[in-house]
Amino acid sequence: MSIIGAFAFFLKSGRDKDLIKSIKNITGFRPGNFILYKNALRHPSVAKDNITDSYERLEYLGDAVLGTVVAELLFKKYPYKSEGFLTEIRARIVNREELNKLGLKLGFNKMVTYQVQNNNFSHKSIYGDSLEAFIGAVYLDKGFYQCKKFIIGKLITPHFDLDEIVASNKNFKSILIEWAQKESMDIRFVIINEVSGKNHKEFTAEVQIDGEPIGHGEGLSKKKAEQAAAEKACLQLKLISA
Amino acid sequence: MSIIGAFAFFLKSGRDKDLIKSIKNITGFRPGNFILYKNALRHPSVAKDNITDSYERLEYLGDAVLGTVVAELLFKKYPYKSEGFLTEIRARIVNREELNKLGLKLGFNKMVTYQVQNNNFSHKSIYGDSLEAFIGAVYLDKGFYQCKKFIIGKLITPHFDLDEIVASNKNFKSILIEWAQKESMDIRFVIINEVSGKNHKEFTAEVQIDGEPIGHGEGLSKKKAEQAAAEKACLQLKLISA
Repeated sequence: MSIIGAFAFFLKSGRDKDLIKSIKNITGFRPGNFILYKNALRHPSVAKDNITDSYERLEYLGDAVLGTVVAELLFKKYPYKSEGFLTEIRARIVNREELNKLGLKLGFNKMVTYQVQNNNFSHKSIYGDSLEAFIGAVYLDKGFYQCKKFIIGKLITPHFDLDEIVASNKNFKSILIEWAQKESMDIRFVIINEVSGKNHKEFTAEVQIDGEPIGHGEGLSKKKAEQAAAEKACLQLKLISA
Repeated sequence: MSIIGAFAFFLKSGRDKDLIKSIKNITGFRPGNFILYKNALRHPSVAKDNITDSYERLEYLGDAVLGTVVAELLFKKYPYKSEGFLTEIRARIVNREELNKLGLKLGFNKMVTYQVQNNNFSHKSIYGDSLEAFIGAVYLDKGFYQCKKFIIGKLITPHFDLDEIVASNKNFKSILIEWAQKESMDIRFVIINEVSGKNHKEFTAEVQIDGEPIGHGEGLSKKKAEQAAAEKACLQLKLISA
């Protein structure tokens, strides 16, 4: 590295300075290994090297860390609730839609870099994905306990009302299965279509009651598609109101 | 608590002493909060209270912690591999079958308490499940970093050969999908049956090529059933040899 190169290495651009400020605002601390955060905020569409520069690897790591922290939080908050309950409540917090909303609230739309492509589909969950990657960056940069403090103190507590989440029963699939068992009807969820985008897949699910299709739904995961199909079926069967 | 009661509280039974010895052998340390480990080794069939005394809640927590530790291990070991690769390799390590085998190797069959029921099906993955719960107990008892050390030093490094796992391509579903795309055939995986036991479900998957069923498989998860069906289809299509 030349002297100028070395000097430039320590000089941060205006954009970098803004980014550091934003990271401090979100986390409450100054980033140590800044490169990690920059990677966490870079969609594969603008990465020089898809694998090492984009947020995808960090997203995989952050997803796991977030899952663990929320698992423990719920485990301790609800000492008399079953593991089925804990799994269900965690899924209501840690899912693509909620994380995407949270990413937007935190201003990730001003921080994430990406290129608009013809097919906008692949950008649907970009803020949630990069938020997970950001969590992965915090974990690598600051260690487990500071990352846990960040997740609980800055992400979960201010943005999720656990009591309200527990009270709302949005699990249409459970409602439907319970109803079918009571009525001794055969119920089946079938993935009838799967479309692959560059970074995502979209699924179509069908609910069949005694072999008859009664609802269809689409989603970015099989689970989401099944939920969407189950909601339609619940409406159709008047188990819920619109 | 009477004086005798209090005294009995501090006296551990012979079985407890053996258990503490076994825990020390497995982990390398003396358990702090012994109750946690006892719960981790108690199947719901013999729990006084399914929720607070059995291993199910701890299993939910341990599963998350194990996932995080293995995620980080692979993330760091393979810095130039995609998140798809990391996810796939993690799934080959952290799955019901592998964990069950590992639980047996570690002697969990001598430690876990359960009641044999008419339907043996629900005990199929008992050692893997309680191993995950055991990890949850270590996490709560000793904290993240000691638990991580335990997972890597006592579970992964001595029992899994990562290079061999990476080299073996057991993902029959991927092989099949790749083949179908090359041949421009329509391929579909359909769960055609689902049987519920007390603690587990068993699934039957069907692979359809251009609408024709070409392989069936069963498994304790949808993914396993699909893999089993895909393996049959791969054999049928001579994409692999038996």
